[in-house]
Amino acid sequence: MSIAERQDPASLPPFPVTADMAGWVVQLRSEDISPQAMIWAKHALLDWFGVTIAAADEPLVRMLVEELAGSEDGSCSLVGLGRRAGLHDAALINGAASHALDYDDVNRRLHGHPTVCAAPAALALGEFVKASGRDVLAAFIAGTEVACALGEMCDEGHYEAGYHATGTMGTFGAAAAAAQIMGLDAPATARALGIAASEAAGLKCNFGTMTKPLHAGKAAVDGLLAARLAARGFTAREDAVETRQGFADVLAPGFEGGPIRPDPAAPLAVEQNLFKYHAACYLTHSSLEALGALKRDHGIGLDDVASATLHIRPTHFSVCCIPAPTTGLEIKFSIAHLAVLALDGVDTAALASYSDANANDPRYVAARERVRLDARQDVDRLAAVVTLELTDGRTLTGEADVGMPADDLDAQWGKLTAKFRALAGPVIGDARSDALIETVATLDDQPDLTRLMEAAR
Amino acid sequence: MSIAERQDPASLPPFPVTADMAGWVVQLRSEDISPQAMIWAKHALLDWFGVTIAAADEPLVRMLVEELAGSEDGSCSLVGLGRRAGLHDAALINGAASHALDYDDVNRRLHGHPTVCAAPAALALGEFVKASGRDVLAAFIAGTEVACALGEMCDEGHYEAGYHATGTMGTFGAAAAAAQIMGLDAPATARALGIAASEAAGLKCNFGTMTKPLHAGKAAVDGLLAARLAARGFTAREDAVETRQGFADVLAPGFEGGPIRPDPAAPLAVEQNLFKYHAACYLTHSSLEALGALKRDHGIGLDDVASATLHIRPTHFSVCCIPAPTTGLEIKFSIAHLAVLALDGVDTAALASYSDANANDPRYVAARERVRLDARQDVDRLAAVVTLELTDGRTLTGEADVGMPADDLDAQWGKLTAKFRALAGPVIGDARSDALIETVATLDDQPDLTRLMEAAR
Repeated sequence: MSIAERQDPASLPPFPVTADMAGWVVQLRSEDISPQAMIWAKHALLDWFGVTIAAADEPLVRMLVEELAGSEDGSCSLVGLGRRAGLHDAALINGAASHALDYDDVNRRLHGHPTVCAAPAALALGEFVKASGRDVLAAFIAGTEVACALGEMCDEGHYEAGYHATGTMGTFGAAAAAAQIMGLDAPATARALGIAASEAAGLKCNFGTMTKPLHAGKAAVDGLLAARLAARGFTAREDAVETRQGFADVLAPGFEGGPIRPDPAAPLAVEQNLFKYHAACYLTHSSLEALGALKRDHGIGLDDVASATLHIRPTHFSVCCIPAPTTGLEIKFSIAHLAVLALDGVDTAALASYSDANANDPRYVAARERVRLDARQDVDRLAAVVTLELTDGRTLTGEADVGMPADDLDAQWGKLTAKFRALAGPVIGDARSDALIETVATLDDQPDLTRLMEAAR
Repeated sequence: MSIAERQDPASLPPFPVTADMAGWVVQLRSEDISPQAMIWAKHALLDWFGVTIAAADEPLVRMLVEELAGSEDGSCSLVGLGRRAGLHDAALINGAASHALDYDDVNRRLHGHPTVCAAPAALALGEFVKASGRDVLAAFIAGTEVACALGEMCDEGHYEAGYHATGTMGTFGAAAAAAQIMGLDAPATARALGIAASEAAGLKCNFGTMTKPLHAGKAAVDGLLAARLAARGFTAREDAVETRQGFADVLAPGFEGGPIRPDPAAPLAVEQNLFKYHAACYLTHSSLEALGALKRDHGIGLDDVASATLHIRPTHFSVCCIPAPTTGLEIKFSIAHLAVLALDGVDTAALASYSDANANDPRYVAARERVRLDARQDVDRLAAVVTLELTDGRTLTGEADVGMPADDLDAQWGKLTAKFRALAGPVIGDARSDALIETVATLDDQPDLTRLMEAAR
């Protein structure tokens, strides 16, 4: 947003963010969405199915299923679990499962993960009301746009305050996606966002625990509930994002409200998604890419490194800098431990690498002491610069920036299908994995989600 | 908390609030609870049943039932609705229903409503696991203590920031109550509170809409879910209240952590509950009491009043000062409109007085312009001073303070049973109302909740 567009809070009423978002969601028609954006949406959904199916055996998924879906009946599919649950429980369980591995996609504008809230809400409701593939794709795109636009208006203030933007923004995104599928009018959609404003939650202190993925599941079901209740006439402020003691006022210091689509010709948020090819926090990826390149280019191993320095943004320190991880899950948020694994040639794309054994391996624990973290404001938010002092006296420097969306969609689809097969094949088999890939690829031609969810269930 | 006990955040680790609360909940046994505290708990539960049953026909309750409990089967009772639902849905629906009329009890330490989150969680789970009446009373007392102690540590900062403390504190209270019923150990109880920290939400901007009561229902089910998941081994920070980027750090400016029971001999929080005898926001009650006394003592009516000034705390302005209510619900948060109704002799204890017609009556709308609100820091938080300029030139002044808990428990039980009969009788009939009163009065002698919930359903 340009300086000229900024509101002066002392003299002007706030920009009507809630109504503007609701109006945009209501007018969006699947036929107005570009073929390129539809392709991006399919990429995001395929990746989402892969990371969700791969989490089927995660303890947190089992606990949620036992608590909420014990009876096995219901209208909606539990992805990768071969069973069903009710509408709300399916959104919650699939949402939490999809973020369990922290291997899902990222969007800079959101300061978090865009798909793990909007997708489970859109898919569960789409299955429940027998929506077409195109309409579910459009709803998913709408939810992603709302969450990312709101995330951009919040910028870093909300996240740095301690909120997990994936969950908070995701509640609005899930509400928007569900409102779109149900065809709510603008006031009802605004009320859905108003209910979502009162549900949005999730604290960064719970990173590294099962409660982090729970944020995504709760956002999915809470957003869905908000839209379902709004459709029934449930009331809430229709300006809850921007009003006094509303979402921005209370949870988002430095919020700058504006139109959801300041430039209608700009790419949609879904076209700016970034996919993970390491199964760890996205903020660690540039460091891992840079270290991997140095290792490859110079033929070095962990024992050749006297010390490593990761030059990263100070914002990383509250997110992915657990100093002494003791579990596989904590490794994902321990950039120093990950650097050691990468230098030792451990495959950071493979889920099996994130084991308690690797967290507690005495060799890695000792080597971790040789990794220094250097807070640098002049490094891009998703980039990293790394410096290695080798035992032979040489100094190597490298850098990487995983912050740019892909420009070659065919190449991205190739990488994503490979990642999907590696994740889903061991759970649902290769044949069903291929069937699911084909179904996602042709989702806009399918009359409902039957084929898709049968392949995914 | 004394000055000497305050932590210096720069030099000391924070007080371990989460673990201390969990430890207290775990050690609490029903046989250690004083008879007086048990009586207070029964008072709170009876009042809760009355306001919940009276809300059975509220549109928001119908919408929630249609959305979540369409099939009518389930293990838990929906109070006043003659039907059942699943464990989680019952906690949500009963919780929202119990706050729908905003006629439920208040606790100063919580800065909100203590019973509408802890009671529905304790009762639904108690029914689900067939807990004894004593154990459910103890769990309810534990949940009330946790919510109120945390509310006191947050003091006004959290509420003034814009959070609806009923919902946020209530999530912790419901989690504690559920953890107590299940007999969780201290680490599991701390994890339940840690999950609750990531769920706690609710914005004051939604006061005057159906989303305000939804906060209570969401807190009940979210706290219940937190405890149920913690019992299954779900992980969360065990210091989520006080740790960096935890609940206090993120949501509670000015938080001062300390022991849940700084003085173990002091009355429990449940013994400090305040009950409503007007069906409006509690912050309006002292004004209504003072106006009612002036009206009674001086034989005046609305037309005798040239102007009225309500001297109230500035904190009221964001809560109960809707300038131009247009619905019956909004009247409850419009202290000026309520003052007009009280001066005109409208019964502010009767639910029927909170009608859209009374909100839009031209005579009341015009008279409202003669009511001034005067922000005064020197008036107690729950008290009010009122000044009336009469048309005959006289000036009358009165004051009231509804902030003190009752000291005559027999008299309180009398007022509460009268209120209960007025609320519940029209819905479940007088015979069942009497049965429910008798069942609550003897709840500590009952082996399970069967009789109680049959009478209440």
